[in-house]
Parts: sequence; structure tokens; C-alpha cells
Amino acid sequence: MLTHRYDGTGVTRQPDQLIVEEPLEIQLDGVLVSTTMRTPGHDFELAAGFCFTEGLLGPDAPVRQCRYCGTGSAVDSEFNVVTVETGGLAPPPRPRLTTTTSACGMCGNTAIDELRERLHPLRPAAPFPLDVLARVPDTVTSTQQLFDATGAVHAAVAFDRDGAPVLAREDIGRHNAVDKVVGRFLLDDRLPATGLGLYVSGRASFEIVQKAWAAGFSTVVAVSAPSSLAVSAARLAGMTLCGFARGGRLNVYAPEELSREAATPARTRAAMSRSRR
Amino acid sequence: MLTHRYDGTGVTRQPDQLIVEEPLEIQLDGVLVSTTMRTPGHDFELAAGFCFTEGLLGPDAPVRQCRYCGTGSAVDSEFNVVTVETGGLAPPPRPRLTTTTSACGMCGNTAIDELRERLHPLRPAAPFPLDVLARVPDTVTSTQQLFDATGAVHAAVAFDRDGAPVLAREDIGRHNAVDKVVGRFLLDDRLPATGLGLYVSGRASFEIVQKAWAAGFSTVVAVSAPSSLAVSAARLAGMTLCGFARGGRLNVYAPEELSREAATPARTRAAMSRSRR
Repeated sequence: MLTHRYDGTGVTRQPDQLIVEEPLEIQLDGVLVSTTMRTPGHDFELAAGFCFTEGLLGPDAPVRQCRYCGTGSAVDSEFNVVTVETGGLAPPPRPRLTTTTSACGMCGNTAIDELRERLHPLRPAAPFPLDVLARVPDTVTSTQQLFDATGAVHAAVAFDRDGAPVLAREDIGRHNAVDKVVGRFLLDDRLPATGLGLYVSGRASFEIVQKAWAAGFSTVVAVSAPSSLAVSAARLAGMTLCGFARGGRLNVYAPEELSREAATPARTRAAMSRSRR
Repeated sequence: MLTHRYDGTGVTRQPDQLIVEEPLEIQLDGVLVSTTMRTPGHDFELAAGFCFTEGLLGPDAPVRQCRYCGTGSAVDSEFNVVTVETGGLAPPPRPRLTTTTSACGMCGNTAIDELRERLHPLRPAAPFPLDVLARVPDTVTSTQQLFDATGAVHAAVAFDRDGAPVLAREDIGRHNAVDKVVGRFLLDDRLPATGLGLYVSGRASFEIVQKAWAAGFSTVVAVSAPSSLAVSAARLAGMTLCGFARGGRLNVYAPEELSREAATPARTRAAMSRSRR
């Protein structure tokens, strides 16, 4: 489309590419569990990933099929209702609109307690060297195609031990990008993502850490800041949580105490490993 | 708290201030309508603003009182359940967790149609000169106190005809910051915000435009990009929508055709006005 560009002195018309935003209704076994504003594409991954990371599938409800409701089509396309089918094995979802029973409501502690009940601490994995993590934002830039075109989307990228991208997804919603990555791994039967890291192009909120934990990512690297509750959740999970990862630098918020191994640069490690041979 | 800072060569410990994130349950006449992750503070504004901008109050349900449920306290404090009281005048909220009745679900068109049904086009207001709008991001920087400390929050700022800040709110959630601004205006009986502009420190999504429209802001200035659906909604509303407002420049996405008045710099306007006297 054409927009008006004001450059401080005058106005010109110029073409501009906008990021597409459309609502997606996600159903689990035919019951609506979420309506989310998302960038169309990879809708089955988004729906399956959302149900998984929010704990809606329960421990024993594998995804049998994802399909668009209107057409029954199992081919990822341009419709706006996706149902995730477990054959009725998923536990009945908790209603989100109801009179609350608790007088004090949910607070940070109850949110953390819910995670503690639902999720186990992460399986131990060798920590990433910090120099590898600090290079991740530069390494994954090539995967952010929509961002290059529109400047408006968030990216989530799974990366391997060397910091190389394994799977990248972009979406107008930060959570959606993470759900799409997790959903792809789920549908490919590659969860938990033990030993892999997850890069997010924005901030690390509680929900981002919760989703990464549910999927088993041992490390999360965010370009921007984490929240207090995100740090608490990451420490409980046994996750490494880095923020402000830019220009080859980063901050480590979890774990509270950094192991000597993590602080040792990858090149030094390789040299030590050679000298031990 | 103390974090580990990796600067590309080594690791140091340094103090860091994190933005607080806590869940808030919002009830309307005792019924839970939303649980949102937010930065505590201005909770009554957030709750009232959310109910208003989401259309939950209906046309004839003024807010009688906001209070924390656990204590009955009507003083803004540190609790996590707020109920907005209309004395039962608000229409019954639509349940969000239910079997969908529509096979094709909600799409961009239905989202726009819902707004068209619920909201009237904005009252005509003299357009802001583009040079005034382009200066807004610099002008409002001084209001972003939490961002300075944490680098992690979003701001929403109402501004007047001269681009000067009228009311600023910050929150870890973009939508929450807007709801807090709108809620303050609502509780002060200052809606609609005709003739005022709204600045948002991030992107302009459909929901941001929807909330600004509901509150009657004639102009929205975003630091980052708008989405396709946000532009459609703004054009329908008769709203001026600007994006990528940085460094004295911006793009105008709505209206589709810029009036000569809007393109005329404020100083030129003032000179013309003087010469006509």
C-alpha cells in the first residue's frame, strides 16, 4: 500500500509493506480455548504449540490431528479456526470466564506455584558458553525475513550448541512466535528440546519463560529485558535466562550463580578439551 | 538484584533493576472478565479502562466504584483482584470459553464489523500538524520513568494540540498502558478524548487502535509499525494513524488521503493565521 512519509521538511508518497494481522480461534477437541491475533501461516503449529505450552494437553494427550474447522481440511491454509484433536484425551479446559473462588486472587507466588505443580525442573544440560550465546542475536538475524520487510514482527528461534539456528518462526505476537516453534517440535515428536536454546527478539516475560520451560529449552536469550517473575520462573526451572543480548554482550539473570563452565569461552573450552587428550 | 554482565571478554556482577510483573484478575460486577500480566500500580485505572475499551460496560453502565475484592478496599494498593462495579448495569459478558457456533470463525472482516457495530466514527477534530506529531516521541520521553530504570516497559501518553504530554502511564503490557490512560480519563469523566492524541511506545496493533477509538482519540502515534488490520480500523474510525515516529520523521497510514491542513507545518499555520488578521 501507499503511505505518506514525513521526513521533517515535506511529505512524499511511498510504498510500504504491512504485516498481516488476523484473529485465529484455537479449539481443543472442538472447544474454543483461545482467540489470538496472529500473522497467518504455520497455524497448526501455533494451535498445537499453544495447547501444549499452556498445559491444556495434559500429560497423556498426544495431538492426533490439526485441522481447519470450516473445511475439515488438514492442509495449512488461510482459514481462521483451527481445532487440535486428541480424541477427547485432553483434560476438560478450565473456564476462563467465571466467578472467582479465591478472595485474594492470583499473585506472582500462585503463578509460580502453578508452574511448580505442572512442570518438572529441566533435565540438566551442559551450559552454553556465554560467548556463543552473545553471538546468537547476530547469527539468527538472517532468519528474520518478515521483520526485514515490515519492521513489525517478533521472532523466536531455536538454536543448537554452536548457536546456529535450527528453526525460526515470526509473528506479530511474541507468544505466538514461541508457540509456533514449540508446535513444530511437538508435531515432529522432537520435545523436550533438551540441550537447545531459544532466542526471542523482544522481552522475556513470565509467559515466554513458562512456554520455553514447558518445551524443555534449557536456555532462553532475549534481546530486551526480563521481568521479575520471568527471572523467578527461570531460576525455579533450572533454566539459563539472558537478557539485553546485543552487540556481543548480554546479562545473565538465571541461574543466580554462574558456573565456571558457563563463563569459560567456547574457544578456551575447545583448547582445554584438546590439551586433555 | 545482582546479575552477571558478559561484555564480550569477561563476566562482572552488577546491580540491575527489574520491572515487576504480576497477574491481575479483573472482575466486572463480580464476574471474572480477564486475567492480565501487568506492572502493579494504577490498578483501578487498568481495570476500568479495560472494561471500557473492550466494550464490556455497554452504553449505559457508568462505573460506580472500583475496589480490591479481598479487602473491599477502595484504595489503590498491592492486591491482585479488582472488581469494577456498575450496580449490575453492565450487559452480561460474553463467555470466552465455549463451543464456537460459527464454522468459519472470526476473520479480519468480522473483527472490523464488530467495531463498526459497537463504535461510531470519531467526532471530526482539526488534524494535528505533522511536525507537531513528529516531535511527540522526543517530547514524551521525560514521562517514561520506569523505562529509564528498567528498559522493559511500554508507555502510553495522551498529548494535547501542541504535542505536550497530558497523562502518561507505563506497564509491561502495551495494552495495559493504554487501558490505564483511558481508565484515568474514564474515572475523571473526561471521555471521549476528542482532540487529544495518543502516543504508544511500541507497535500499533488492531487492539491498540480499537482501544484508542473506543476512547475517542483522534490521532495515534506509534514508534514502531502498524499492522494491516490496525490501518483498516483506523481508516474506518476516521482516525489519523502514524507509525515509525522516530528522529523527527514518521509515516502516515490513515487517513488514506492526507488533507492539506495536516501537511502544513504548525509554524506556517500560525503565520497564515497572523497574516489573516
